Amino acid sequence: MASQIGPNLIMSGSLAIAVDLGGTQVRAALVAKDATVHSQLIENTHASSGGHVVLEQIREMIGTLAGKVSAASVLGVGLCAPGPLDAQSGIALSTPTINGFSDLPIGQLLSDGLPWDVQVENDGIAAAQGEWKHGAGQGQENLVYVTISTGIGGGVVADGQILHGRKGMAGHIGHMTIVADGVLCPCGNKGCWEAYASGTAFTARANEVRNEDGVVTSAKSIFDDARRGAKYAVELVDQEAEFLGIGITNLLHLYSPDIVILGGGMAKDFDMLEPGISRHVTKCAMPPFRDVPIVPATLESSSGLVGVASMVFTAHSS
Amino acid sequence: MASQIGPNLIMSGSLAIAVDLGGTQVRAALVAKDATVHSQLIENTHASSGGHVVLEQIREMIGTLAGKVSAASVLGVGLCAPGPLDAQSGIALSTPTINGFSDLPIGQLLSDGLPWDVQVENDGIAAAQGEWKHGAGQGQENLVYVTISTGIGGGVVADGQILHGRKGMAGHIGHMTIVADGVLCPCGNKGCWEAYASGTAFTARANEVRNEDGVVTSAKSIFDDARRGAKYAVELVDQEAEFLGIGITNLLHLYSPDIVILGGGMAKDFDMLEPGISRHVTKCAMPPFRDVPIVPATLESSSGLVGVASMVFTAHSS
Repeated sequence: MASQIGPNLIMSGSLAIAVDLGGTQVRAALVAKDATVHSQLIENTHASSGGHVVLEQIREMIGTLAGKVSAASVLGVGLCAPGPLDAQSGIALSTPTINGFSDLPIGQLLSDGLPWDVQVENDGIAAAQGEWKHGAGQGQENLVYVTISTGIGGGVVADGQILHGRKGMAGHIGHMTIVADGVLCPCGNKGCWEAYASGTAFTARANEVRNEDGVVTSAKSIFDDARRGAKYAVELVDQEAEFLGIGITNLLHLYSPDIVILGGGMAKDFDMLEPGISRHVTKCAMPPFRDVPIVPATLESSSGLVGVASMVFTAHSS
Repeated sequence: MASQIGPNLIMSGSLAIAVDLGGTQVRAALVAKDATVHSQLIENTHASSGGHVVLEQIREMIGTLAGKVSAASVLGVGLCAPGPLDAQSGIALSTPTINGFSDLPIGQLLSDGLPWDVQVENDGIAAAQGEWKHGAGQGQENLVYVTISTGIGGGVVADGQILHGRKGMAGHIGHMTIVADGVLCPCGNKGCWEAYASGTAFTARANEVRNEDGVVTSAKSIFDDARRGAKYAVELVDQEAEFLGIGITNLLHLYSPDIVILGGGMAKDFDMLEPGISRHVTKCAMPPFRDVPIVPATLESSSGLVGVASMVFTAHSS
C-alpha cells in the first residue's frame, strides 16, 4: 500500500500517525509535515463498548496505518479526543460521550506495545492548532477556534501560543453559561452555550416547530429550506446565529483574538449564519472588539488530524 | 521628604512610580521591587473634566512623588487604567467612566516631559500581575483574578504568562453575557456578568427590596445585616454568590486556572460569599474543574499599584 504514498514520505520521521477520536466516529491517518493527509481511515466509534474496546479499535487502526510505511518513517502518534482530559498526563477524565473514558490513562495504555510515544490532546485544541498552522489562522498571534457540531468545543491561541491552562483543560468554551438557569446541557449544568447553539440544539428547535408534520429535521434540511426562503427555517437560522453571536461576543471579550474561526458540521453553512452573527457582534461587543474577522475553518473535518500531527512534529523539533 | 524612604530605596533604579487610575479615585505611589508601597497619594479623579485634565492631575501626582527621591532612583512609570485600552500602544480606546478617554494616547501624552518611559496596562491585568507576583497567586502557573466592585474586571495568567491577546485586551470578564437578553449593562450590552454580580448590581437589588423604607443601602450594610441574620440580607447575599458562582464556573471552563482570586470592594466580605460560590461551582462545573481553590486577594487596594510596578521592573530586567 506504500505505493500511494510518495517516496519522499518514507524518509525517516517524515510522518505522524494522527487519530481523531469522537463519540460517533474515529478517524486515523498518516499526516506529513506539510499537513497532507494520507490513507485516512474512518470507523464508527465503539463508544458504548467500554474504554478498552475503543482503545483496541484505535490500536488496530494505528497498526493498519503503520503497515503501509516503514517504522522509521513515523515520528510519533498523536491522539485527540473529547474533553475533559488531562492533556499533560494523557488521562481521559470524564468524557461523557465515550463509555469508560473516566480516569483512563489513554496515552499510556495506547503507547504500550507501540514503538512510538503517544501524545494526547483535547480535540478542540488540536483543531485550533491545525487551523493555526495550516488553515484559516495562519500567521495570527491570537485566535479562537470554535467547532459547532453535536456539541460545541474549541481551542485558543493567545500571544503566539496554544492556551493550555491547568491540565491542558482551557477552552471548554461550549460550557459557558449564557442563560442562567436555562435549558439542561448534556454536561449536567444548565444554560451552557452548547445547549443553545450546537447543531443538536438547532435541530431540536426545528423539530419542536415542525413536529406537527411528523418530520425529523436535519441541520442540512433546515439550511436548505432557509435558502429556499421558508419562513420557519429563516427564523431558526436567525435564532441560531443570534445564539452563536452571544457566545462569540463573550469569546472576543474574554480572549481578545485577532480572528475567530468556525468549524464543525454547522460551519458548512457559514454563509447563512455569518450575517446574523456579525449583526449581534456589531451591536453587542464593546467597540474595540467589533472589527475582529469571523471566518470559516478551511481544513474542514481534517483540522483535528492535522493539528495533532503538527503537535507531534513540534514536540520532536524542540 | 526622602527621609521617610529608607536609604536603600534611593539606589539607582530601585523604585517605580505606579499610578492606578479609576473612574472615582486615582492612586499613585513609589513602589519598591519587593512590592512595598511608599508615599501613596489618593485623589478623586477629575473624571468629568476631560482626558487632558485627568492626565494633568496624574502628571502632578507623579511630580510630587518624583520630588521625594532622586531621579536616578526611579526606573520608570507604570499606569493602569480601566479598559478597553490598547496596552501595546498605550492608547485609551473607549473608557466609559472617564470623560475624553476615547482614542487618547495616554502613554505618549504622559511621557512627554518626563525623563521615564510610561508603561500602560489594563487595571484588571495589572492587579492580576500584582496578586501573581506578590499576593495570593504566587507560584501559580494559571490563575484568574476577578475584581468585584463598581463593575467587574479581571486578568488572567495562563501557562506561566500574563494573557494579553490582541491589543492587550484579553480578560474583559465582566462583559460575558450570562443572561441572554438580560438586564442592561453600563457597556450597552444586555445580560453581562457585571450587570448581575457587581457591587452596583448587588446594592441595586437591595434597594429594590427595601425601597419601601426609603433606605439607601450600601453593600457593607447588606453584609452587616446578613451577619446579624436579617432574612432579606441573607437572601441577597445568597443570590449574589449564585451570580458570582455562574461567572466563576464559566471562567474555570474557559481558562482552566489553578486558582481563582477575588478582589475589589465586594471581596472584603469574601467569607460571606464563599459558601454560595462553592455550592454553585460544585454543582455546576464539570467534575475535573470542581477542586480549584477560590480565595480572596491579599494585596487589597494595592494590587493594581504593585502589579503595574512589577511590570515596570520586569520590562527593564529583560
